[in-house]
Amino acid sequence: MKLLKHTLRHIEEVVLDAQGDIRNKFKAFAIPSGSLGRMEELATIYASIKGDVNCKIQNKKIFTMAGDHGVVAEGVSVFPQQVTEQMVQNFMAGGAAINVLARHIGAKVIVVDCGVASHLETKQCLKIKKVGLGTRNMAKGPAMSREEAVRSIEAGIELIEEELEEGLDIIGTGDMGIGNTTPSSAILAVMGKMDVDVATGRGTGLDDEMLQRKISVIKKAIAVNQPNPNDPIDVLSKVGGYEIGGIAGLCLGAARYRMPIMLDGFISTAGALIANAIEPKVNKYLIASHVSAEKGHRTMLNLLNKTPLLDLNMRLGEGTGAAIGIGLMEAAVKLLNEMATFHESGVSDPYIVNVNS
Amino acid sequence: MKLLKHTLRHIEEVVLDAQGDIRNKFKAFAIPSGSLGRMEELATIYASIKGDVNCKIQNKKIFTMAGDHGVVAEGVSVFPQQVTEQMVQNFMAGGAAINVLARHIGAKVIVVDCGVASHLETKQCLKIKKVGLGTRNMAKGPAMSREEAVRSIEAGIELIEEELEEGLDIIGTGDMGIGNTTPSSAILAVMGKMDVDVATGRGTGLDDEMLQRKISVIKKAIAVNQPNPNDPIDVLSKVGGYEIGGIAGLCLGAARYRMPIMLDGFISTAGALIANAIEPKVNKYLIASHVSAEKGHRTMLNLLNKTPLLDLNMRLGEGTGAAIGIGLMEAAVKLLNEMATFHESGVSDPYIVNVNS
Repeated sequence: MKLLKHTLRHIEEVVLDAQGDIRNKFKAFAIPSGSLGRMEELATIYASIKGDVNCKIQNKKIFTMAGDHGVVAEGVSVFPQQVTEQMVQNFMAGGAAINVLARHIGAKVIVVDCGVASHLETKQCLKIKKVGLGTRNMAKGPAMSREEAVRSIEAGIELIEEELEEGLDIIGTGDMGIGNTTPSSAILAVMGKMDVDVATGRGTGLDDEMLQRKISVIKKAIAVNQPNPNDPIDVLSKVGGYEIGGIAGLCLGAARYRMPIMLDGFISTAGALIANAIEPKVNKYLIASHVSAEKGHRTMLNLLNKTPLLDLNMRLGEGTGAAIGIGLMEAAVKLLNEMATFHESGVSDPYIVNVNS
Repeated sequence: MKLLKHTLRHIEEVVLDAQGDIRNKFKAFAIPSGSLGRMEELATIYASIKGDVNCKIQNKKIFTMAGDHGVVAEGVSVFPQQVTEQMVQNFMAGGAAINVLARHIGAKVIVVDCGVASHLETKQCLKIKKVGLGTRNMAKGPAMSREEAVRSIEAGIELIEEELEEGLDIIGTGDMGIGNTTPSSAILAVMGKMDVDVATGRGTGLDDEMLQRKISVIKKAIAVNQPNPNDPIDVLSKVGGYEIGGIAGLCLGAARYRMPIMLDGFISTAGALIANAIEPKVNKYLIASHVSAEKGHRTMLNLLNKTPLLDLNMRLGEGTGAAIGIGLMEAAVKLLNEMATFHESGVSDPYIVNVNS
């Protein structure tokens, strides 16, 4: 609890382009005003968080947070639970989609065991931050204790602090956990105060019957546990997951050290919802990379007041959307750094030279 | 005309994933089926055009096609005409947005003088394919002769052929030409058989009064010239532009040599409309990188039956949207090439191992 409290005390409010110098820099470039659209917005977010109009992106890291879920005993996923561990091995071997996309953008993938239901060995590319061997079945009681929820969040904060020395400018979030759209939908339903039916989608590919079962399970979990929507740590402990807590911790830790957070899809955004409720100042550090094909994700992004950069019908997780989003962010920051002005390029600025020719 | 005819004879129909092997490759990867969304679609387009499920992207080139427009005499742009040439110099110096974004994705920018209204010297990074010193004022007569229209298209085909030897796997289109949203809107109105008001937007930033003037000018140009909507070369010659013809030629040439064409925004799509009407087989080679903030662009994409990859409120041209789109395409092709299968990674495939655990 000490690390969490300390972190929260040090999160500063971001004011976008406080001095107006980012806007002025874009206005001086030899382009029609505003014509780079959301690329200007992205560069503005980055430079505002860094407090430097000439900042660059050097170190990009994507944290793929893995955890298991006791609720899979209720039959809420088409994949068997051991796939979580198998995919962790796949991430470490470099063969997963997130590895391919991270290589493409020059980012490092940090795979984290937040609570996989088997014992994994620490390796160079795997961090062990295990809170438990999978959560308990939330349909029968709380997924974890309040202490475990705090521990999972603090694990995320620790990850940020451990990476600071090597250098870290921007983070991407990612997840792996068979069954984890179930707690994410539960978090959305509770914190968004909405019907479970609206908040629940097909995850990795449920048919109609399994979807109905998943909805019933989430309703039961909420009825049994009565999570308090005004207490995000209570929500996380009762209907959350270790990797979701870890993602919330990444958000808080990154905000504390003034780093933009490129959110991936549905599970990452559930973690961000928790972080944002714990400390609303986190909001300005969050960027929505994409809207997932998972039902409920757009609603979740609306709760955070975020418009996604991409809509590519993806629903894989791992950090795959975040990787693409970080590529866009880097392009935007390069535009801010490398473009020539009207003056430098000798291009006529119509608002100085001649409006009507 | 000979080069154009020869090119058209050699454009082959693309059948997406004719053998089903791309789909099978994706199905074998250790991911939930279909979870990479439009990234799978992009990889499928690329591999289908290349006819090889293991194809890679090596050489990426963005053609930034420059031309001037006699119609600027009518006061349809806030920028003076000399900005076209000044921006060509800026492209050559590497300081424009397209240079930054092309460097970011590792693409080469080829700047082309299709018909700038001043004499430019050939340089290593500038190709001269000048059809004329700017088009004539379409509000008073045809922008160019039919022969010039064909010449502008053939210039685009030549560019593709000249780059083949060095290697070329995918092209991006781009444009620079003060006033060129005016002919592009005219092409949309004629070929889409729609009201000029609906097809016409604010370009680089017209106010209400200038927008009304622009609409009147386009109506006048269509009334004076009576372009035949069923004859795309007639449309190009009467209300088009040299760089728009050049882009149409790039599309035809790229299709003839089985290369995907990443379209930029409004002007590029006008060129693609012409190419697509000349030879509908071109359609499957076209990818819409983004939908521009320019009014009419989405309608134009609908005419081509294309859904844009990105909606970032950009409206700069130059090839900037295409550069970002090529980055996505390359990421998609890497996914197809580099991901591990269920078998290779030891991940349980639920449809083989165990559907309900």
